[in-house]
Amino acid sequence: MQNSSAITALQSLLGDRLSVKKADLVHHGQSESHFANTPPDAVVWPASAAEVSDIVKICAAHDCPVVAWGTGTSLEGHALAVRGGVIVNLSRMDRVLDVHAEDMDVVVQPGVTRTVLNDALRATGLFFPVDPGADASLGGMAATRASGTTTVRYGTMRDNVLALQVVLADGRIIRTGSRAAKSSAGYDLTGLFVGSEGTLGIITEMTLRLHGQPQAISAAVCGFDDVAMAVTVATTAIQMGLPVARIELMDAASVAAVNTAEGYDFPAQPHLLVEFHGSDSAVAEDAATFADIARDAGGTDPRTATRAEDRNKLWAMRHRAYWSILASRPGARAVVTDVCVPISALAQAIAETQADIAASPITGPILGHVGDGNFHAALLIDDTNPDDRAAALDLSHRMAQRALRLGGTVTGEHGIGMGKLAYMEQEHGPGWDVMGQIKSALDPQGIMNPGKLIRQA
Amino acid sequence: MQNSSAITALQSLLGDRLSVKKADLVHHGQSESHFANTPPDAVVWPASAAEVSDIVKICAAHDCPVVAWGTGTSLEGHALAVRGGVIVNLSRMDRVLDVHAEDMDVVVQPGVTRTVLNDALRATGLFFPVDPGADASLGGMAATRASGTTTVRYGTMRDNVLALQVVLADGRIIRTGSRAAKSSAGYDLTGLFVGSEGTLGIITEMTLRLHGQPQAISAAVCGFDDVAMAVTVATTAIQMGLPVARIELMDAASVAAVNTAEGYDFPAQPHLLVEFHGSDSAVAEDAATFADIARDAGGTDPRTATRAEDRNKLWAMRHRAYWSILASRPGARAVVTDVCVPISALAQAIAETQADIAASPITGPILGHVGDGNFHAALLIDDTNPDDRAAALDLSHRMAQRALRLGGTVTGEHGIGMGKLAYMEQEHGPGWDVMGQIKSALDPQGIMNPGKLIRQA
Repeated sequence: MQNSSAITALQSLLGDRLSVKKADLVHHGQSESHFANTPPDAVVWPASAAEVSDIVKICAAHDCPVVAWGTGTSLEGHALAVRGGVIVNLSRMDRVLDVHAEDMDVVVQPGVTRTVLNDALRATGLFFPVDPGADASLGGMAATRASGTTTVRYGTMRDNVLALQVVLADGRIIRTGSRAAKSSAGYDLTGLFVGSEGTLGIITEMTLRLHGQPQAISAAVCGFDDVAMAVTVATTAIQMGLPVARIELMDAASVAAVNTAEGYDFPAQPHLLVEFHGSDSAVAEDAATFADIARDAGGTDPRTATRAEDRNKLWAMRHRAYWSILASRPGARAVVTDVCVPISALAQAIAETQADIAASPITGPILGHVGDGNFHAALLIDDTNPDDRAAALDLSHRMAQRALRLGGTVTGEHGIGMGKLAYMEQEHGPGWDVMGQIKSALDPQGIMNPGKLIRQA
Repeated sequence: MQNSSAITALQSLLGDRLSVKKADLVHHGQSESHFANTPPDAVVWPASAAEVSDIVKICAAHDCPVVAWGTGTSLEGHALAVRGGVIVNLSRMDRVLDVHAEDMDVVVQPGVTRTVLNDALRATGLFFPVDPGADASLGGMAATRASGTTTVRYGTMRDNVLALQVVLADGRIIRTGSRAAKSSAGYDLTGLFVGSEGTLGIITEMTLRLHGQPQAISAAVCGFDDVAMAVTVATTAIQMGLPVARIELMDAASVAAVNTAEGYDFPAQPHLLVEFHGSDSAVAEDAATFADIARDAGGTDPRTATRAEDRNKLWAMRHRAYWSILASRPGARAVVTDVCVPISALAQAIAETQADIAASPITGPILGHVGDGNFHAALLIDDTNPDDRAAALDLSHRMAQRALRLGGTVTGEHGIGMGKLAYMEQEHGPGWDVMGQIKSALDPQGIMNPGKLIRQA
């Protein structure tokens, strides 16, 4: 076994920071999704970029796959060692290295999670906005090009990563980008590595863009007779340039699930949750404008919340939605889908998806970052029931086809991993070959997270 | 000659849309900078992506260089055929193909210029914000990753290109991205081609992000005793999150030049020009906040302008600055430098640059997109005087070194072309080799705009 000789060499480098214990392998063979447990041959915990470089060099010498691991919260099996090999767990590289408050940037190691970073930033008046839900590692979020509820205002990881340090497949350590706000100096390597899912290199340091904590925040929630009405209000707000910081859709089933699980008393109808960031007067004006749009369309009078505890209670409704949906069918697990379409097509995409789910044997409440045209269905299945599983995968497949037909993408924020690999050719055509050419140029042995994102050799 | 056999083959394809006339060759051998005229062997005017593909295939078959040309306004010699070959002038591919007002995007051919696009959009209430000064082609702006005065609010071309159609070095036509607002579906090829300066392919179609015309616009201009004070005010505004849509520095020499050339009567001291976009009340509040910051720092009372004609008059001061500076030394030409640093280093970078220019035999008024940490010196030289030229290139060299020392980049928005090639290794280290590997993978013959951006074979 090539992999076992790599592991022997890694053991002398890392000592007890390498494990082949069954519990560790099984833990790193899990994903937060419907994929079977896929244990790697070993797990290593490096402490520095130089050590990651040494690890990759040893693996390259033995043609052994190398898979980076953050917190294991990806949803498409990104971090599973599907061809065996070594998982590089970056959780010990978890330092916030430099806060440049004046420049509104921060340098972090990849194992820092987003909540740890925001705790560290609290005294500065700055925050890092990208919020994918899970308390993911920032390295994993960059590798997946994650986004979330605040993207409509603050952008995705693509927009919030200024610079990277990356270990390449041959062990070279490169830096991409700089701390300047913009640059025209050559190919955008930072942008190339963001979203590359560990297939081109391992991120060992990142410079992130920070944002000022707004002077005032105003949140509101508002019910609608149907999803079409809610989506129309959301798209109207976007199209008229209302500066929403978040605008989230929960369908009636999601709201019902949260009511039951968390004791809320919202009417069981679709809701929009919105938030505005700015000066006191600006957020008041924006909230009033939104209320006008919502009422004109036939929505309920928005409940607003400006005090932190009221806002937190309101947003807990959204943040607890996934767990509440899971709890609505005891023993079930969820296949969480993820598509993104031009906002003009969003109402149609959601309506067709709801009809499709209604005609299936399973349930699937819908949640959406509707300001971006991005939505998810949490398809609930009994994992031991092959019919449920097949129904979920069929629905997910038709959602992907629908997104492409409507000019969108098969994944707004969860990434490709293994779960969306089958759609890459359809979405990108010969562009997918170009991705393969870049992969071959930078990782000719194919050791970096093989089996993900690109066409398999 | 390989190139002449390529030209013979191209002639049968294109007829009178190929020229080898001296006037055409000389015209396409010019740049807006200090480079010597470098005529290509031929110029072609394709009418479609399919024709661009055929052109590239013919050139590839004869190992003939292919250089894309927009409006010829790049500043670092990007579009000069330094190894001969064929210039592909894209000015006949100048159609606005589809305006998707609801989705706030537009599909255009690469030869559309930014003012033509904005004229076409006028009735929609939308606009395309990136403004590099020149009325450049949008294809050229994408290829150079251009930005300009509005970048502090609306971003660069990187942020405003959603999708591309590109003809590769082997003639393949690919599409990158989609009309969805975001995607995690694989490598960001759109971002890779934006800023690649025609070295990886020729952009033949682009989908651009549009923005709503603001309800209200408020502009103001304010003088300061010295540049340090002006820069402090600009960085304070940015750091406190004031949503400036533009924030431009003109130093005392720039203001004096505009006063003389255009009949303004501003005090000959450094000025900031700012603009706010939003609702009536929001821009009024923002302008008042800015005025407070400026007065607290010791600036003059800002002159504000909200009516379009007053704002246009105010901004004409900035837009005419380059020509006014040129006119301040009759017969001179300008070597326009371009660096970008973290904003905390901006005051130091400008102060050192001013001292350096003051100690040189030439003059060089400074203009800056100071919200981004980006500034230019327009170094005035008598082109027939080798001492002037040497002084300008020395100053430019030290500006680049200074930017790198301060954690910045050698080009904020003008790009690499030939003029900044010598700094790529220093700025990127082994990252430049990675750019070369990508180039070799996608253009193994090296026919796409050879001699630019990457290490020369």
